[in-house]
Amino acid sequence: MLELRLLQGGLLKKVLEAMRELVTDANFDCSRSGCSLQAMDSSHVALVALLLRSDGFDHFRCDRNRSMGMNLNHVAKLLRCAGNDDIVTLKADDDGDTVTFMFESPKQDKIADFEMKLMDIQSEHLGIPEAEYQAIVKMPSQEFARICRDLSTIGDTVVISVTKEGVKFSTKGDIGSANIVCRQNTTVDKPEESTVIEMKDPVSLTFALRYLISFTKATPLSNTVTVSMSSDLPMVVEYKIADMGYIRYYLAPKIDEDEDQA
Amino acid sequence: MLELRLLQGGLLKKVLEAMRELVTDANFDCSRSGCSLQAMDSSHVALVALLLRSDGFDHFRCDRNRSMGMNLNHVAKLLRCAGNDDIVTLKADDDGDTVTFMFESPKQDKIADFEMKLMDIQSEHLGIPEAEYQAIVKMPSQEFARICRDLSTIGDTVVISVTKEGVKFSTKGDIGSANIVCRQNTTVDKPEESTVIEMKDPVSLTFALRYLISFTKATPLSNTVTVSMSSDLPMVVEYKIADMGYIRYYLAPKIDEDEDQA
Amino acid sequence: MLELRLLQGGLLKKVLEAMRELVTDANFDCSRSGCSLQAMDSSHVALVALLLRSDGFDHFRCDRNRSMGMNLNHVAKLLRCAGNDDIVTLKADDDGDTVTFMFESPKQDKIADFEMKLMDIQSEHLGIPEAEYQAIVKMPSQEFARICRDLSTIGDTVVISVTKEGVKFSTKGDIGSANIVCRQNTTVDKPEESTVIEMKDPVSLTFALRYLISFTKATPLSNTVTVSMSSDLPMVVEYKIADMGYIRYYLAPKIDEDEDQA
Repeated sequence: MLELRLLQGGLLKKVLEAMRELVTDANFDCSRSGCSLQAMDSSHVALVALLLRSDGFDHFRCDRNRSMGMNLNHVAKLLRCAGNDDIVTLKADDDGDTVTFMFESPKQDKIADFEMKLMDIQSEHLGIPEAEYQAIVKMPSQEFARICRDLSTIGDTVVISVTKEGVKFSTKGDIGSANIVCRQNTTVDKPEESTVIEMKDPVSLTFALRYLISFTKATPLSNTVTVSMSSDLPMVVEYKIADMGYIRYYLAPKIDEDEDQA
Repeated sequence: MLELRLLQGGLLKKVLEAMRELVTDANFDCSRSGCSLQAMDSSHVALVALLLRSDGFDHFRCDRNRSMGMNLNHVAKLLRCAGNDDIVTLKADDDGDTVTFMFESPKQDKIADFEMKLMDIQSEHLGIPEAEYQAIVKMPSQEFARICRDLSTIGDTVVISVTKEGVKFSTKGDIGSANIVCRQNTTVDKPEESTVIEMKDPVSLTFALRYLISFTKATPLSNTVTVSMSSDLPMVVEYKIADMGYIRYYLAPKIDEDEDQA
Repeated sequence: MLELRLLQGGLLKKVLEAMRELVTDANFDCSRSGCSLQAMDSSHVALVALLLRSDGFDHFRCDRNRSMGMNLNHVAKLLRCAGNDDIVTLKADDDGDTVTFMFESPKQDKIADFEMKLMDIQSEHLGIPEAEYQAIVKMPSQEFARICRDLSTIGDTVVISVTKEGVKFSTKGDIGSANIVCRQNTTVDKPEESTVIEMKDPVSLTFALRYLISFTKATPLSNTVTVSMSSDLPMVVEYKIADMGYIRYYLAPKIDEDEDQA
């Protein structure tokens, strides 16, 4: 028996919206410690990793490990039927091939349940080693989303360069070139508005903007985003999910011709 | 001479929006007692009936009975030119072939008049006998609209089942199945938020969701909706129009193969 | 060296949005007295004239006269990357072929610069003589925009007729005819809500609605609009830009067959 209950069901909606643009089908892996999901995007360039720890749920029961294949667009469709204040419960029998989502209105006068067939999805769980990064930038998630969106109106790729003073985002396109610099800024009243740079070495890497824009679908999940970069590693873009875990996106830098281009 | 005046002209906009998706051309039948309209939808499956009693108007003069054929999309277009606070007056000569809509701003500094040609529309007025229904459900109109919309993302038809405890809406589709139960609930502070069930016999009927969704275009007209059902009668979905009348939609249940499907 | 600085950068966004629907490429002419732009729309029917006086800028330096050709859609794209509270600076070297837009966030923790290549655009600056008009109507800009939009759902052209009592907008189309009258109205509390008519002779002229609708893209720039008309002159639709100048649109009346049509 698997039974997960979240009083703030709106959170699950945001989690699905943060993944479904990149990934269509994926396995939710559930164990006593929590739920996780790992999947490559359809072009096999970016990787999404989700963790929701069991202690973040209002009720969590998982009698045996399960790997439940789901179409994320279908799940997102079902979740859109939940009110933002609804209590969401996910249930599955140990040997069944379906999963049930139950939505209860706060006053308990409306109860909806949705049954969905599970899918068999081939996937290998990649071990992602913890790494040391040359530079880690923590900044407001809305600012990061705005910068990616703004630059994408001008060019296709972005060069992200980190120095002690700040982080610079640059692009080039038919209509011209753009540079946006965010300065280290830790003196603001609200910590979620600060930009904090931890840097071992300066680093400057090029990425495809369209993936970054997909990553920023996670913006509603967290006020801040953390971007970790090293020359020889995929970048990590992480959004914390309050008290429960995180969603992380991995993307390899572009090399060769791209560095000239943008 | 026909002259109808409504201080709250925004009401007429809502009435037109509630009908124009189902019905293109229809006759407004005016007499001393008020205005009414009855029309089948273009696929001849659903029936719309509107009543606006004369005493609900701020001024009502109808010297002789008129049946004025209008294209509802054209009327809706004209009414969109009225401000929500505008006073709306509808005028027609007894033997003319046009109707004039006049919109006056509350401060009387802007006056608009729109003249539209009337049409000849063949229609028979069906006598709809008052009937006894096995089950009558009164519920918040926004809740009903939300349920129809949510279920339509999953299936094409809905089974509505009424018992003493509540009303259940069920559907089935490619991605799974769904059940939404609204419990009888009369203890809420605001009567318009209550769900009240009057039931002689349990009833369970199947309907095409796309018609129900068209009916819910009337949601802005009323906080509550009343759904009346019997096994051998078309269902009635009624929205009251405060102090003036109602808009009612009639829809026959689906039979045979549909009951298996959803 | 050219350097223009505006603390309220959002203003420039509105200026660009007010022009880019009518004009694609145009020269910004800068001199010590300020910046101006004059361009025909692509169908060579309407003329746009912009004036931003130097004393309206927070910093204005123009060492020698420049005529800088720009694609207005590209400039609008760049300006959309500026926050509404950003300080906007425009810079160009005297003999360079590029222009730089710099956006600084109010807290100075985010600085963006965009470099754009200038274009060579052939254009003659028309001298527009100051004229005496038969009728000048000042009215709320939102009201004017609303009337143009409403009438355009019914017809293609509008007859604007001014008398001492008010201004009348009339149109005709397939679904009927419409007249909207705005009365002279100077007794309102807020002067920006008044409708003021200065009239030497009554005048009645016909215009193509689609140009008027393009002009109303300037509505966010000013609470009021001034419409000046004479029988033998193009109409002028003017929006003041607070403390800086104006944007003016010129449009010739339609003659002959059009006067019958609408």
